[in-house]
Amino acid sequence: MSTPDGRSYRTGIGTSTADTITLLGHDLARDLIGQVGFGELAFWLIAKRRPSPPELAMFEAVLVSLTDHGFTPTAIAARLTYTSAPEALQGAVAAGLLGGGSRFLGVTEDAARFLSDALAGQVPRPRDEADWDELAAGVVAATADAGRLVPGLGHPVHKVEDPRTPVLFELARRHDRFKEHLQLFAAIGRVHPEILGRTLPLNGAGACGAVLADLGLPVSVMRGVALLARCAGILGHLAEEQADPIGMDIYLSVDRNVDYRP
Amino acid sequence: MSTPDGRSYRTGIGTSTADTITLLGHDLARDLIGQVGFGELAFWLIAKRRPSPPELAMFEAVLVSLTDHGFTPTAIAARLTYTSAPEALQGAVAAGLLGGGSRFLGVTEDAARFLSDALAGQVPRPRDEADWDELAAGVVAATADAGRLVPGLGHPVHKVEDPRTPVLFELARRHDRFKEHLQLFAAIGRVHPEILGRTLPLNGAGACGAVLADLGLPVSVMRGVALLARCAGILGHLAEEQADPIGMDIYLSVDRNVDYRP
Amino acid sequence: MSTPDGRSYRTGIGTSTADTITLLGHDLARDLIGQVGFGELAFWLIAKRRPSPPELAMFEAVLVSLTDHGFTPTAIAARLTYTSAPEALQGAVAAGLLGGGSRFLGVTEDAARFLSDALAGQVPRPRDEADWDELAAGVVAATADAGRLVPGLGHPVHKVEDPRTPVLFELARRHDRFKEHLQLFAAIGRVHPEILGRTLPLNGAGACGAVLADLGLPVSVMRGVALLARCAGILGHLAEEQADPIGMDIYLSVDRNVDYRP
Amino acid sequence: MSTPDGRSYRTGIGTSTADTITLLGHDLARDLIGQVGFGELAFWLIAKRRPSPPELAMFEAVLVSLTDHGFTPTAIAARLTYTSAPEALQGAVAAGLLGGGSRFLGVTEDAARFLSDALAGQVPRPRDEADWDELAAGVVAATADAGRLVPGLGHPVHKVEDPRTPVLFELARRHDRFKEHLQLFAAIGRVHPEILGRTLPLNGAGACGAVLADLGLPVSVMRGVALLARCAGILGHLAEEQADPIGMDIYLSVDRNVDYRP
Repeated sequence: MSTPDGRSYRTGIGTSTADTITLLGHDLARDLIGQVGFGELAFWLIAKRRPSPPELAMFEAVLVSLTDHGFTPTAIAARLTYTSAPEALQGAVAAGLLGGGSRFLGVTEDAARFLSDALAGQVPRPRDEADWDELAAGVVAATADAGRLVPGLGHPVHKVEDPRTPVLFELARRHDRFKEHLQLFAAIGRVHPEILGRTLPLNGAGACGAVLADLGLPVSVMRGVALLARCAGILGHLAEEQADPIGMDIYLSVDRNVDYRP
Repeated sequence: MSTPDGRSYRTGIGTSTADTITLLGHDLARDLIGQVGFGELAFWLIAKRRPSPPELAMFEAVLVSLTDHGFTPTAIAARLTYTSAPEALQGAVAAGLLGGGSRFLGVTEDAARFLSDALAGQVPRPRDEADWDELAAGVVAATADAGRLVPGLGHPVHKVEDPRTPVLFELARRHDRFKEHLQLFAAIGRVHPEILGRTLPLNGAGACGAVLADLGLPVSVMRGVALLARCAGILGHLAEEQADPIGMDIYLSVDRNVDYRP
Repeated sequence: MSTPDGRSYRTGIGTSTADTITLLGHDLARDLIGQVGFGELAFWLIAKRRPSPPELAMFEAVLVSLTDHGFTPTAIAARLTYTSAPEALQGAVAAGLLGGGSRFLGVTEDAARFLSDALAGQVPRPRDEADWDELAAGVVAATADAGRLVPGLGHPVHKVEDPRTPVLFELARRHDRFKEHLQLFAAIGRVHPEILGRTLPLNGAGACGAVLADLGLPVSVMRGVALLARCAGILGHLAEEQADPIGMDIYLSVDRNVDYRP
Repeated sequence: MSTPDGRSYRTGIGTSTADTITLLGHDLARDLIGQVGFGELAFWLIAKRRPSPPELAMFEAVLVSLTDHGFTPTAIAARLTYTSAPEALQGAVAAGLLGGGSRFLGVTEDAARFLSDALAGQVPRPRDEADWDELAAGVVAATADAGRLVPGLGHPVHKVEDPRTPVLFELARRHDRFKEHLQLFAAIGRVHPEILGRTLPLNGAGACGAVLADLGLPVSVMRGVALLARCAGILGHLAEEQADPIGMDIYLSVDRNVDYRP
């Protein structure tokens, strides 16, 4: 299947014929519908391999962790867009996802990249907690010396502890998925107070990044995992906005309290 | 919790305090992470009630059915946007979802609305297959007389049978979720050839709409279910585009074969 | 220029070779840059014909009229998206434009379509103000009888008069562009109080729709004109947000005043 | 105007009362509609100051330069999104703009930032062409040594000369707006062949960045200028797509020539 000039488009995702739909090399109707969960299929699509049950458990735990965080800027933007253009639900969902950038959803990816970079070239890997603490101390000190922040450390609301982090740690241990990225992340949690002079929480988005990196997902798609999770959260906000709208109130609250300084 | 001028914003989705995150009235860390699947949480957010196991099975079957359909316009738009702005994955995902409108993803919602409207006021409901066929025949005839198409009937590729439809029917029967919207949809499949003078397949997107309507989800959020499913499919395309890009080839194929007619 | 299988893609917009860029059939560098204004080029692209000076004056007046309306939902959504993802300005602009739907920017298109539909088949056209009033009275009465609103009539803030409308009317008269859509729109303003039992203002967005229809632009692109205008307004908001941010304050005002009702 | 809890939202863009609309401190209806062009208003909104006639001439020249470049990925993505969701024009425009990122529209901003950074701390400024060449040579050499590319140098199609660049240079000289960023950009064009060992064109997007920087616009909004220009180009593509669609053909060309490799 290629054009006479030889151009064709490679993919391993999906294709269809008159009587079949193929997804990831499998017959969608015969082999997937009713037999694969949606979270499982999402992992499979992103990683191009089917997750083992422990991997799937961790992946779903990350998705559930990142689905919603209340009235975030993304949820508010989605609701306002729906208020303004209710005939196009896809526009409101898209507007919400467009806030999935560096400040609010990017931490997952940033933390994963930070941990991966720190581990690159560490041969052999640390073997015990003392080794991990030593590596973590070096990484935190170097980051602080460069005037940068450690991704995954600190949270504007959860100033002492992000409640998601210990639960994700415990789950990863139970499923034997507490691998090197989580090891390093946990070590950062232990050693940073002495180096930075204050104690910060390991936040949930950072923990999610460490979990996903330990699952072997490429760093470059991790923001996508956060976006998929948030897509469900935004739909919850929009379904609620349809039934019990507050978008107009938010708009009026801003508009009526303008401090005009031309 | 309201401002001194009394303004406050109602929600039942999520909120957080310094040491808790609450989602749908439950403690996210203690009660949800690791204990609820992502598909289950998505249903819960949209419907504001937790699905029963059969409901969840049907909801996940719909999500899996709608996740991907190969190189659709939405998948291509997402890939081209990534080609052009690879630094902002959220933009590529959003561009893909923006194609989730009337022509390609809207059928699910359109079919659900069509079936719901047809059932409104049918008291008592049809009791046997002959009754359903009679109702279906009246609805199809009235739609054809008005010069409109029956949503869910026909498919540009799957001209004889959409392979998803019989699988969704079978699953719904097995889970005792073959309710009135599916009854009417199936009856339309049986009676339309005589009325329209040709035999069309009941398409998968339409079957999904009937399933979701039988689950009691509001018609106004069904496009959202299709968007959530497609979000995973788009992420699959974008992860593949990162590893094995074709976006530049698509662009050049169009640009080099311009037929310029100013 | 076509592929061996004969596929090629028609366009009259633009193309380029190694040493030329062609736009609308003209050499961009030699004939357009420095010689055509941006508003003029936008009209030309949309209408596929160069505007006359009076047409251009009216088109620019419409764009200026629709550029900004303060803290609209679209401006707020754009600012919140920027707050959340400041690395991708295009995402914030897109989020803002996605609110350009039926409720806030759609009036321009809706009014133009309403006026066009009312004029279709009116042969010969009304010849004097009494004729226009008669046509307008019939249209307003029929719309009210059908339980629908007349697009372009009424405004949530400008309850007595939208200040843009008389200025647009006066400009159109001065440039001899006060044609049939404006005639009918003005007549609706005169006759509706007696029919509806209350006096509503002719709003500016509706007047813009009438102006654009009198310029001969297709109704289907009018929402696009409003989007182009609003794009400049959103950029103003985002440039200000970069220099003097308020997005975080808006977010916190909503988040801190949650009324949580799971 | 502030809430009882003292929260208010600063802006100098726009606000409205029952009978006025204010934009940039001016009465929109009385002072702006019909008296200010759209390009002028856009500059004013972004820069928070009204442009002089030479500044406006250069700003409009930049907008016209960046409006369209034929079948770019952004134009194709917009058309495909329209094909898929024709009921929401705003979604197709947004999808097109979301491609306005680093690879295709980002050069304007990248070049401006590169030139600004190179000029920072150059006190006193170079006084003659030899001085500029010396500065340029140092900057190009340092960039090449760091293994990076010089933004604004080179073009995938215009391999010898980008036809927009000499026209923009000539216009800037004529309007006495050939200031330090353009001086340095031109010097880079003169000196780079000897340093890099090959001759590359100064591309138009880079020249636009130099022009905008010489106008004193902040680097952080320059991508926005490119987006505004491209918004008009995308509308041209979408108006054409409405009248003479090719989106379905593009989709089919990709879909039918799949090279499926699960």
